[in-house]
Amino acid sequence: GEFARIDHHRQLRTGFPETIWGQGKTPDQIVQIMAAMRQRNSVVMATRIEPDVAEQLEEKVEGLRYYPMAKIAAIAPVRIEPQYPGKIGILSAGTADLPVAEEAAITAELSSFRVLRLWDVGVAGIHRLLDNRHVIAEASVLIVVAGMEGALPSVVAGLADCPVIAVPTSVGYGASFGGLAPLLTMLNSCAAGIGVVNIDNGFGAAILAGQILRTAGKLQ
Amino acid sequence: GEFARIDHHRQLRTGFPETIWGQGKTPDQIVQIMAAMRQRNSVVMATRIEPDVAEQLEEKVEGLRYYPMAKIAAIAPVRIEPQYPGKIGILSAGTADLPVAEEAAITAELSSFRVLRLWDVGVAGIHRLLDNRHVIAEASVLIVVAGMEGALPSVVAGLADCPVIAVPTSVGYGASFGGLAPLLTMLNSCAAGIGVVNIDNGFGAAILAGQILRTAGKLQ
Amino acid sequence: GEFARIDHHRQLRTGFPETIWGQGKTPDQIVQIMAAMRQRNSVVMATRIEPDVAEQLEEKVEGLRYYPMAKIAAIAPVRIEPQYPGKIGILSAGTADLPVAEEAAITAELSSFRVLRLWDVGVAGIHRLLDNRHVIAEASVLIVVAGMEGALPSVVAGLADCPVIAVPTSVGYGASFGGLAPLLTMLNSCAAGIGVVNIDNGFGAAILAGQILRTAGKLQ
Amino acid sequence: GEFARIDHHRQLRTGFPETIWGQGKTPDQIVQIMAAMRQRNSVVMATRIEPDVAEQLEEKVEGLRYYPMAKIAAIAPVRIEPQYPGKIGILSAGTADLPVAEEAAITAELSSFRVLRLWDVGVAGIHRLLDNRHVIAEASVLIVVAGMEGALPSVVAGLADCPVIAVPTSVGYGASFGGLAPLLTMLNSCAAGIGVVNIDNGFGAAILAGQILRTAGKLQ
Amino acid sequence: GEFARIDHHRQLRTGFPETIWGQGKTPDQIVQIMAAMRQRNSVVMATRIEPDVAEQLEEKVEGLRYYPMAKIAAIAPVRIEPQYPGKIGILSAGTADLPVAEEAAITAELSSFRVLRLWDVGVAGIHRLLDNRHVIAEASVLIVVAGMEGALPSVVAGLADCPVIAVPTSVGYGASFGGLAPLLTMLNSCAAGIGVVNIDNGFGAAILAGQILRTAGKLQ
Amino acid sequence: GEFARIDHHRQLRTGFPETIWGQGKTPDQIVQIMAAMRQRNSVVMATRIEPDVAEQLEEKVEGLRYYPMAKIAAIAPVRIEPQYPGKIGILSAGTADLPVAEEAAITAELSSFRVLRLWDVGVAGIHRLLDNRHVIAEASVLIVVAGMEGALPSVVAGLADCPVIAVPTSVGYGASFGGLAPLLTMLNSCAAGIGVVNIDNGFGAAILAGQILRTAGKLQ
Amino acid sequence: GEFARIDHHRQLRTGFPETIWGQGKTPDQIVQIMAAMRQRNSVVMATRIEPDVAEQLEEKVEGLRYYPMAKIAAIAPVRIEPQYPGKIGILSAGTADLPVAEEAAITAELSSFRVLRLWDVGVAGIHRLLDNRHVIAEASVLIVVAGMEGALPSVVAGLADCPVIAVPTSVGYGASFGGLAPLLTMLNSCAAGIGVVNIDNGFGAAILAGQILRTAGKLQ
Amino acid sequence: GEFARIDHHRQLRTGFPETIWGQGKTPDQIVQIMAAMRQRNSVVMATRIEPDVAEQLEEKVEGLRYYPMAKIAAIAPVRIEPQYPGKIGILSAGTADLPVAEEAAITAELSSFRVLRLWDVGVAGIHRLLDNRHVIAEASVLIVVAGMEGALPSVVAGLADCPVIAVPTSVGYGASFGGLAPLLTMLNSCAAGIGVVNIDNGFGAAILAGQILRTAGKLQ
Ligand SMILES: Nc1ncnc2c1ncn2[C@@H]1O[C@H](COP(=O)(O)O)[C@@H](O)[C@H]1O
Ligand SMILES: Nc1ncnc2c1ncn2[C@@H]1O[C@H](COP(=O)(O)O)[C@@H](O)[C@H]1O
Ligand SMILES: Nc1ncnc2c1ncn2[C@@H]1O[C@H](COP(=O)(O)O)[C@@H](O)[C@H]1O
Ligand SMILES: Nc1ncnc2c1ncn2[C@@H]1O[C@H](COP(=O)(O)O)[C@@H](O)[C@H]1O
Ligand SMILES: [Mg+2]
Ligand SMILES: [Mg+2]
Ligand SMILES: [Mg+2]
Ligand SMILES: [Mg+2]
Ligand SMILES: [Mg+2]
Ligand SMILES: [Mg+2]
Ligand SMILES: [Mg+2]
Ligand SMILES: [Mg+2]
Repeated sequence: GEFARIDHHRQLRTGFPETIWGQGKTPDQIVQIMAAMRQRNSVVMATRIEPDVAEQLEEKVEGLRYYPMAKIAAIAPVRIEPQYPGKIGILSAGTADLPVAEEAAITAELSSFRVLRLWDVGVAGIHRLLDNRHVIAEASVLIVVAGMEGALPSVVAGLADCPVIAVPTSVGYGASFGGLAPLLTMLNSCAAGIGVVNIDNGFGAAILAGQILRTAGKLQ
Repeated sequence: GEFARIDHHRQLRTGFPETIWGQGKTPDQIVQIMAAMRQRNSVVMATRIEPDVAEQLEEKVEGLRYYPMAKIAAIAPVRIEPQYPGKIGILSAGTADLPVAEEAAITAELSSFRVLRLWDVGVAGIHRLLDNRHVIAEASVLIVVAGMEGALPSVVAGLADCPVIAVPTSVGYGASFGGLAPLLTMLNSCAAGIGVVNIDNGFGAAILAGQILRTAGKLQ
Repeated sequence: GEFARIDHHRQLRTGFPETIWGQGKTPDQIVQIMAAMRQRNSVVMATRIEPDVAEQLEEKVEGLRYYPMAKIAAIAPVRIEPQYPGKIGILSAGTADLPVAEEAAITAELSSFRVLRLWDVGVAGIHRLLDNRHVIAEASVLIVVAGMEGALPSVVAGLADCPVIAVPTSVGYGASFGGLAPLLTMLNSCAAGIGVVNIDNGFGAAILAGQILRTAGKLQ
Repeated sequence: GEFARIDHHRQLRTGFPETIWGQGKTPDQIVQIMAAMRQRNSVVMATRIEPDVAEQLEEKVEGLRYYPMAKIAAIAPVRIEPQYPGKIGILSAGTADLPVAEEAAITAELSSFRVLRLWDVGVAGIHRLLDNRHVIAEASVLIVVAGMEGALPSVVAGLADCPVIAVPTSVGYGASFGGLAPLLTMLNSCAAGIGVVNIDNGFGAAILAGQILRTAGKLQ
Repeated sequence: GEFARIDHHRQLRTGFPETIWGQGKTPDQIVQIMAAMRQRNSVVMATRIEPDVAEQLEEKVEGLRYYPMAKIAAIAPVRIEPQYPGKIGILSAGTADLPVAEEAAITAELSSFRVLRLWDVGVAGIHRLLDNRHVIAEASVLIVVAGMEGALPSVVAGLADCPVIAVPTSVGYGASFGGLAPLLTMLNSCAAGIGVVNIDNGFGAAILAGQILRTAGKLQ
Repeated sequence: GEFARIDHHRQLRTGFPETIWGQGKTPDQIVQIMAAMRQRNSVVMATRIEPDVAEQLEEKVEGLRYYPMAKIAAIAPVRIEPQYPGKIGILSAGTADLPVAEEAAITAELSSFRVLRLWDVGVAGIHRLLDNRHVIAEASVLIVVAGMEGALPSVVAGLADCPVIAVPTSVGYGASFGGLAPLLTMLNSCAAGIGVVNIDNGFGAAILAGQILRTAGKLQ
Repeated sequence: GEFARIDHHRQLRTGFPETIWGQGKTPDQIVQIMAAMRQRNSVVMATRIEPDVAEQLEEKVEGLRYYPMAKIAAIAPVRIEPQYPGKIGILSAGTADLPVAEEAAITAELSSFRVLRLWDVGVAGIHRLLDNRHVIAEASVLIVVAGMEGALPSVVAGLADCPVIAVPTSVGYGASFGGLAPLLTMLNSCAAGIGVVNIDNGFGAAILAGQILRTAGKLQ
Repeated sequence: GEFARIDHHRQLRTGFPETIWGQGKTPDQIVQIMAAMRQRNSVVMATRIEPDVAEQLEEKVEGLRYYPMAKIAAIAPVRIEPQYPGKIGILSAGTADLPVAEEAAITAELSSFRVLRLWDVGVAGIHRLLDNRHVIAEASVLIVVAGMEGALPSVVAGLADCPVIAVPTSVGYGASFGGLAPLLTMLNSCAAGIGVVNIDNGFGAAILAGQILRTAGKLQ
């Protein structure tokens, strides 16, 4: 449609699925953009889709799949084969961070990457993390999702020997100020080598992790 | 002097040394207040005393001792005997946090408490902390000092079984915003039971730790 | 469940009830976590439970008790005997601060501590506080809850001779900025020795107060 | 001069001294404006004059008087008779707030008002204030100056029966954020009827207090 | 009730109506407090009462009057005679600021003061203000209410010869940040002698204006 | 030099002088860039040049002229003929805003525009502005410079019938927060049609005003 | 009505349609103001009108037209002839910015200006913009609307040779902080000559663009 | 030393040089830590070393090299052979961003990576960037350094097909707020897959870029 100028160029170049940012778009707009996109892509996805919008989409878009925890709606082959070397390890600090962590995980899987999940290993019970160090060791790139004080990426980066992507979440209250607290925490990490993305941006973290593994693939 | 109304009442009641907040006071004002205070107290101290001010004070105040790292100047007996049960464990995350950690330590010692120091155990190298868990175990109350992302108190509180007082410092740059980042981190800690004091306020942390041990003493 | 990694370790070590942070969790998640927890604990509680969620929980969790003012749901023995020395005095500045003050009070009682309540003694009518000084005198540790300008902890700390924990609340409007105003007030208190917790965090204040009394108990 | 368009109109109408805001002006500019002003006014004053600038002014402006604590330079009759009913009571919380409190006091006296001073009565030692309630009772309007947590105006307004003007100061550190903390405290005061001025604006507080007494005079 | 400690002391001393801050209180709590208050006061009022709450109150409180624009509910004599000298002039910048301006006006009238209203005289059409200068001239104290850029108090203070109370409102969007913009504008006014109250605090402005006129009355 | 990639393209296209932003550059860097630029341009200028840097530049760059109030150093013909229709009116609120206003004025004149200056017409003395309305009437585009509360652009835009460019300045203290206050004021102006530039950005305002007059020239 | 003081003066002088800011006004107030305005104006418009309010207005105001994307309701001739030279080019970065871009476009068209629209040309796919440079070349003034990082105006200003007006939008999440991020981006643009308006203020941008073209017309 | 607990563990594991954060450390402390570190490492470096500190270090540390633009002091072999596949492309927006860009470049080179530099390609002159697209194509990972509005990473990420690391700088003034503006810009980038580090943190960006290439190496 005229209101949306699809950047096929970038999609072809990068190999990631075409993605619609669902927030602030009407169901009708999403349906139209999806229709245009699916003509040239095997995987089309939309993020930030609330359950009631998903229901409307499912009626109009054939073959749509909805991931309620991740709030992602997608048109995709039933089975997506991993196409890149390595694994993306995704860790989350608390149960309430799961939607963001799953947004990252589903995005990565729809983009043909292998994913390792490790949930609820926040720093206040450090043994939960230390007991699962094999996940950190097995991954080639890590996405660490945390709200509240957002301290998990610092600890993980101290234990890991691969790039760490930190995702602050808006989980918390009071002096969290909508995720500002964990965002600042992550930016100020004394563990060098952490890349931070926007608050609640699981999608962007997955794309960056994917870029890292694709680059590794190209350098081989 | 007329410009300073000393609260002897509180001092007598609490047993802590009379303390002058040195910032924003002229050396002359400090000398006058110290003179008035020492008539009724065995320990008188001033915080936030820069080395050049300390030199001026030393000329005019007999028996003054200066602690350069802590920036504290004090009139006190040569040896202060511990008068309360238990120990105050003080941990700091990085080398640059030392002045604040020492402000806490010297204040506690001048107030007749036992102090255990553990420096440079930031979370990015978690083994430095885990290898020294005996310090955490030995203390009855902990003061945890950290700048940058300020994650140390959360991890410590998860390991400890006593009250934890968190002190954010202004150590850092950029998105630290003068200590705002570690302050928010500490307030949002998912480890319940942490009391936070003002940025760089080692003094206040020591007073609170002292109050806790004095209360323990009274409950016996 | 897989989405929640319970830290039994910490619970055993600290003696506090296992607690679920209800915000951002579905009723089903809460029911599942409660079921897992109650197998090993005599007291299980959940905070931030809205009345409509409480109703759903009550249907599925046998023996659940709901404290509407505190927004706490708990499984607990009918009578909880105090197990620690001393009393936790809880003061609130205004009527609208009651939910936070009660969150602290109920948490403390479910954790086997004695509680003294003193409501609506804000500083603009200082005699309401001065007329009740016996409460301050009787407590071994104080929790002071205040919204708006949050000045009450400073005044109380000046009158008290025990540790003071300050809880800012989001009560207010305009330049309160969701509790930022009383939070800053409390962090900047000129009465040294105040530990501050997150905005509206009555729960955390109670845990810290409890830790202080438990420590006192251990030092005996 | 062309760079400064003096508003004689307002001065005549209000009866307050012509005042130059010294900050960000060169000594030469100040001398020129003073020269222009003194032709039509018996009292001319400049605020925010640092000692070294004052020295330069004293050389070039005959009869200039400098108040170092208040950082005010003025040309004025040796004795200024009070011309209005009532007294302006000025209270300050701490020693470090004195420069702002004196800026208010000297401005008020140069404007022909009676002033009562009461210094260092911060809320952490409430008896220092309660013991001096006669000052509050004697004043017809109160200016209350406080930095750090800025709680004094709330307590004073609860005791007083006249208008209260609150002046936050930049005294403090860390989470004071240059006076933001006491500013928010004062704006959120639960004691209705407090008018707040800018951080460190002792001058503006004195003008407002003066307006109140002048209005009272006109209504007689 | 136990949850609300009424400060009759202050009410008697100041002569203003007892006032309940309606926000964050249940209708039942408001009814109970009103019942307790009306036994000792001829005028009892509650602010921040939404229309649906007002309906519930009207059913249970006899003789209650509701002012929908001001969101005030009151028990008061049918006619309140002015008891103090002078008039309170209330100006508002835009139509959307009316609720706050009326909160001030009704509070003042229920407190027995004379009120002059002048609405919609924002600075972008300065002639609307200049054409109504007689209102400014007739008032003994001015309340100036403005949202958006909040510039009106500065201009009014330049024209007036009496105390000016500025009330920022949350009217606006975007970079207004909930009223922060006009609040900062008013605090930084280059017209000295403006007292600022909290965002949307029409009530507090009226109490301060009233205090000023009462003081004038006492000085006679 | 390699560290500076001059955009001759844009300069040729727009006709404005090549301009170096002096802040954060060493005198040597500035000299080198100026040398490269003057080969292709008749006017080369540098902003934010402190007097001591200017002295160093004057030694090394032949024909350099320094404007101390505007802090601009320039290589330019002795007389620059106006080349565009209309006049740029520049108004400033206070004496301390002059450096920013002059930065705008000198930039405009070096860019071949006619300039009208009107200084010290802040809103607190509205008659100073109303008495000079002819300046507003004569200009084809207005630049309005104001610090503190920054209200002048709103009032001017209400009187003018041409585009208004607002420049907030960092003049002020306390709640000005380095110019944030007037910036927000100007962005929230209820007088539609005001374009705002960065704090203290007199240069950018002049370029925008120039663009407007050049566009007018092209449309003829 | 008494609550709204219409500034016919300004409307006549500027030639723009009378405009009501719909936010925070009741449908009844809007109907009354429209009725008063249409007596003297051929075009009357209201912004920020939600669909449900529009329906109520349409019932009571004859000949009202509603633009749902722009959220503008207007009384206007069926065909509005362009009356000024030049064209206003309006660019938007993303699909979600359309409501703000259309607010600008409809306002400009109702004000008798020619409009060129170019949607969804955000900087992350720079070729979408470069491929449409003819739009930039054809316009005499540009309005550039962008949310999220708000980088589009900088790039456009580097390509254009006419005034650029930047409109930040509240489109985004997390660290966008309601549009603060693109607002700061635009104010800090290294491309000099950009005028910024309030977040989401498409209306104001259109008025400023219109003023620029009207000025051009007058200079002819 | 006791004040610094070196984390040899991490250094061995990661292969990066041991690095001292020079800010807030005395020259003596730096000398001591360097001495301890060089015993086990072939490359030791310190960041944030001002020229005068560098001079003191050079006297005491044999073989020290100082990079004045990057403010890095290092002990390292004369020639460091690249040890990893791929190249790190480093782009900077303006001349004033060079110190941060060089901190990244020197850190990368001391860590045995190949570096491509491209300076002064800010978005306001987009052709400077487009003319150098070969640099983007040749790199396997990109570091993009920008102050002011910080828009460069978004544009680069749209052109690149590899991971992008964004470094906001504190270059700018006014509404840059010490680098907050470009930080927010980068976090909100609509080009997914950008990892952001702290303001002015060229060091951290280099470590993250290095981790990415090392990971690629390990996956081969
Ligand atoms: N570094 C510090 N930070 C916070 N409060 C302090 C500090 N040093 C002293 N104080 C407090 O400041 C009070 C004295 O303030 P003053 O009367 O201004 O000297 C003492 O009673 C302490 O409670
Ligand atoms: N310390 C101060 N704080 C706020 N406003 C002041 C101060 N001193 C003077 N003023 C005001 O600034 C005006 C003069 O400003 P100026 O023309 O820049 O000298 C006076 O009329 C006062 O209203
Ligand atoms: N969307 C808008 N954003 C900013 N200002 C507006 C908007 N719509 C209308 N206005 C302005 O608001 C004024 C009317 O405000 P009001 O008197 O409250 O209806 C108009 O003259 C316009 O200048
Ligand atoms: N410029 C810098 N910015 C951020 N982190 C740094 C910087 N320089 C060194 N570091 C980190 O700081 C650690 C050393 O800190 P310290 O022990 O205080 O010297 C190193 O291991 C690095 O990870
Ligand atoms: Mg958990
Ligand atoms: Mg270290
Ligand atoms: Mg009450
Ligand atoms: Mg004192
Ligand atoms: Mg209006
Ligand atoms: Mg002036
Ligand atoms: Mg798009
Ligand atoms: Mg450049």
